[in-house]
Amino acid sequence: MKIIVDLKERSYPILIERKALYHIQDVIDTNRKIAIICDDFIPDTWIEIVKSQCPNSMVFKFPQGENSKCIQQFQYLLEQCIQFQMTRKDAIIAIGGGVTGDLAGFVAASYMRGIDFYNIPTTILSQVDSSVGGKVAIDMGSYKNIVGAFYQPKGVLIDPDVLSTLSIRQQHNGLVEALKMGLILDEKLVEAFEQDVLDLEYIISRSIDLKRIIVEQDEKESHLRKILNFGHTIGHAIESAYGLDTYYHGECVAMGMLFFIKDKDLKQRVLKIYESLSLPVVPDYDVDVLMNCIVHDKKSSEKTVSIISIEKAGQYKIEEMSYNLIRDILERGPYEK
Amino acid sequence: MKIIVDLKERSYPILIERKALYHIQDVIDTNRKIAIICDDFIPDTWIEIVKSQCPNSMVFKFPQGENSKCIQQFQYLLEQCIQFQMTRKDAIIAIGGGVTGDLAGFVAASYMRGIDFYNIPTTILSQVDSSVGGKVAIDMGSYKNIVGAFYQPKGVLIDPDVLSTLSIRQQHNGLVEALKMGLILDEKLVEAFEQDVLDLEYIISRSIDLKRIIVEQDEKESHLRKILNFGHTIGHAIESAYGLDTYYHGECVAMGMLFFIKDKDLKQRVLKIYESLSLPVVPDYDVDVLMNCIVHDKKSSEKTVSIISIEKAGQYKIEEMSYNLIRDILERGPYEK
Repeated sequence: MKIIVDLKERSYPILIERKALYHIQDVIDTNRKIAIICDDFIPDTWIEIVKSQCPNSMVFKFPQGENSKCIQQFQYLLEQCIQFQMTRKDAIIAIGGGVTGDLAGFVAASYMRGIDFYNIPTTILSQVDSSVGGKVAIDMGSYKNIVGAFYQPKGVLIDPDVLSTLSIRQQHNGLVEALKMGLILDEKLVEAFEQDVLDLEYIISRSIDLKRIIVEQDEKESHLRKILNFGHTIGHAIESAYGLDTYYHGECVAMGMLFFIKDKDLKQRVLKIYESLSLPVVPDYDVDVLMNCIVHDKKSSEKTVSIISIEKAGQYKIEEMSYNLIRDILERGPYEK
Repeated sequence: MKIIVDLKERSYPILIERKALYHIQDVIDTNRKIAIICDDFIPDTWIEIVKSQCPNSMVFKFPQGENSKCIQQFQYLLEQCIQFQMTRKDAIIAIGGGVTGDLAGFVAASYMRGIDFYNIPTTILSQVDSSVGGKVAIDMGSYKNIVGAFYQPKGVLIDPDVLSTLSIRQQHNGLVEALKMGLILDEKLVEAFEQDVLDLEYIISRSIDLKRIIVEQDEKESHLRKILNFGHTIGHAIESAYGLDTYYHGECVAMGMLFFIKDKDLKQRVLKIYESLSLPVVPDYDVDVLMNCIVHDKKSSEKTVSIISIEKAGQYKIEEMSYNLIRDILERGPYEK
């Protein structure tokens, strides 16, 4: 199926199709210089499949992991583009997870003030979370996504077959973002997680389509798009403070969401889903450490933070919460009955 | 006078007014955190005038000169913004010439994926050239403006009184960009340069208004805006190869324009204007060295370069020239009769 993200002159298609990797020309004009950017853990066979369809291409690799979302790798990749003598009319293809899309996307946004960018996300998380939205960025020290751009890809290509190489933990990590979309906007999607066998293609394409609707209404995250940050305020803080080597991003978001699900029955349903996905429980944390992360996090402005909370499945609320209130919520903990 | 650059939701005002420095609130909402970015040669009195109007501000300085348009200064300034705990709702004010606007503008474009950016250009060149257009960038090695963004300021403030501290050479350097606008689009503006006493305010505001018309029609430099590159192809090459320590940017553009003024009488008029502005003559150059710079320059794509040439004052032509043709033109030299 093909979903068109309608952002006027920045509109682009998302192709979701088994074996899409074998006919990237459906989405990508490969008749120019192409820099294929990926980490050093991506299977060579995938790189070869893509490269064989790009007659004038080079592959630029960076070390796997969040640590590569840094200014040094950003600089390294830009230098590679210069050496390859790429012009404004050439393009970058990212193959990989969220780190790859964020890093390669910011390189594409900045090289010569922006060249065409295509994304081939290979994890559930990046398919659901970052294939729609155009948010690209790198980190600085412990500040996640502090430097970046809103830069829409020219096209996104999702081949569900590539997911088969992911570990179960990676798959479940990604499914958290899909569950998040359900909790905010669509009870049916939440129910899809309560089936004995998960229909992955339904869950992925439904989540992407929900996110598309949001982003189309608010490309620059000025109001409505904030709701996608559900779970991220505390989730990011846990990730920054305790998670970078221990937890996956989605696992931290799952933890963060628990604090703001108000309906008790819904929280029990969600905890059951977490159990079925073998998600980790929230670790013991130091309230001061997490508060410090939250204050420095980019969603905060002055003395309040925009918090998304869920009343019932598919029903959200945006609240401006004071730091004191957040501290209170952290002190009460996520499992409060 | 106030010129509004109409770019829909990215529209912004340019205030051109003596003593405008003393009431920046006409253009800038100063009731938030403000990072004032400037080089270490800007007079302290100007910084103080601006800072005294921003109750919650800090000044971040970088070493004067094109060398500061580098990834290290970019990183340094971003780190200062983080330390100042700036949020998405805060703003950056640049005070200075083109280097300052380019560097501070790219910091503003990238910090948290973009915060408000205000520019107070203090040289004729930056008032005419970079106050309209939204092109921000840094260099990498010898590649000028290779990493950057199209990022419109929220407002521009031009105080003609600050020009009095510029050297005559700096003033003349800046006037080249204004002359360029005249040569492309407006014979009247060329004639303004043939007067015994130059009317600086007329020249500056007329040039800005001409540039505004171009940028409004082509924000991302996809077609029409190319004409602003008149003189830049060879000019940039001379600047990269011989100019960084010897010539100013405008002086190099002046040299670059000579190669593409087709009408002999007009070329004589222009040479006379150059003389009155004491602009340097084109130095002896190595054709191979310049060609090498041109091939790597970002305006080139594949085997041709878009060249703007002038038939008569105010009448331009866009031509796709092969590298061989450019080489030929370089071999014939700029003073060919």
